[in-house]
Amino acid sequence: MSLNKLLQQIEFIKEIDKIKYIQRKTKLFNSDRNENDAEHSWHLAIMAIVLAEHANEPVDVLKVVKMLLIHDLVEIDAGDTFIYDTVKDHNNTDEERVAAQRIFGMLPQEQAEDLIGIWEEFEAGHTAEARFARSMDRLEPLLQNTSNAGGTWKEFDVPFSKVYNKKKVIKEGSDTIWNYAEDLLNENVAKGILRKD
Amino acid sequence: MSLNKLLQQIEFIKEIDKIKYIQRKTKLFNSDRNENDAEHSWHLAIMAIVLAEHANEPVDVLKVVKMLLIHDLVEIDAGDTFIYDTVKDHNNTDEERVAAQRIFGMLPQEQAEDLIGIWEEFEAGHTAEARFARSMDRLEPLLQNTSNAGGTWKEFDVPFSKVYNKKKVIKEGSDTIWNYAEDLLNENVAKGILRKD
Repeated sequence: MSLNKLLQQIEFIKEIDKIKYIQRKTKLFNSDRNENDAEHSWHLAIMAIVLAEHANEPVDVLKVVKMLLIHDLVEIDAGDTFIYDTVKDHNNTDEERVAAQRIFGMLPQEQAEDLIGIWEEFEAGHTAEARFARSMDRLEPLLQNTSNAGGTWKEFDVPFSKVYNKKKVIKEGSDTIWNYAEDLLNENVAKGILRKD
Repeated sequence: MSLNKLLQQIEFIKEIDKIKYIQRKTKLFNSDRNENDAEHSWHLAIMAIVLAEHANEPVDVLKVVKMLLIHDLVEIDAGDTFIYDTVKDHNNTDEERVAAQRIFGMLPQEQAEDLIGIWEEFEAGHTAEARFARSMDRLEPLLQNTSNAGGTWKEFDVPFSKVYNKKKVIKEGSDTIWNYAEDLLNENVAKGILRKD
């Protein structure tokens, strides 16, 4: 029984290696090398551990970390969608739900249901953990684009108002981090690396 | 006060991006592309979450995950050492201790001390969490080399006895996973992708 479960888990572990090939639009810090989803997920998980004290509400850090480690696994099937894409909506597509069923469904049933639940909770964004996890997901590319003199904002000519609307999600997870992020956005406009509308 | 801490934490978050450039010897699954330390750490953290039920002793999963997410950060300064290197010892070098002080030392003091403590606990390997975390660190490259028809064992002509000695650390974290791993090593010998001494 234990061995059967282990064999299913090992197949899942092999399968999720594919996330290391999913390229994001965003580049690494001070770099022109694209970040992949595994690197991104690793970074967000450490950020959540380091920044948890700034969450607006007490959070179960292990749950936040689980959310962040798995949040992009559906992209193995559904691919990465650029957050400022004007055609395809980023979140909660049918394609992503089918991917979640296939990928997490490789695990023993109870574990599959648990991880699908955590992924759905992250996507819905209604709990303290999901709100804080989503604020991490918005903060990392803000720091990256700032270090890259505008990064994807420059590359895809995204104006301040669009960036601001995406980034203000940070406030739902942490007022402290949002105050920092808002200042950084304004500084980026002043420096001319983020275009005022 | 809260802002001062946040600014220190942000500097740490930027600094650790460098781990994405640290290449391991091991290749991704079914691949000739080297894995980097961020990808490796992400994979081990998920493995720990998925496999925790097989630990010999009950483990604090959040602590195991923290260990695995940060265990290679010292390599930003000290570089990656190949586990079968015959000259340089992998663990607990002075160089790594200095690196831990510098890198974790970027964080607010209490947090720095906490993470240095967790890193040292992992390196020492004396607690249930450290034993289980270390078994994850041994299991991933075993799966990778198996998928790559021998991978680094073939590339560096490492014989069975050396691999076996490194891998048996898995048993200290999980008998169930060790039974699987030992069978896999023997299969690899039978298949001729791991050389019998």
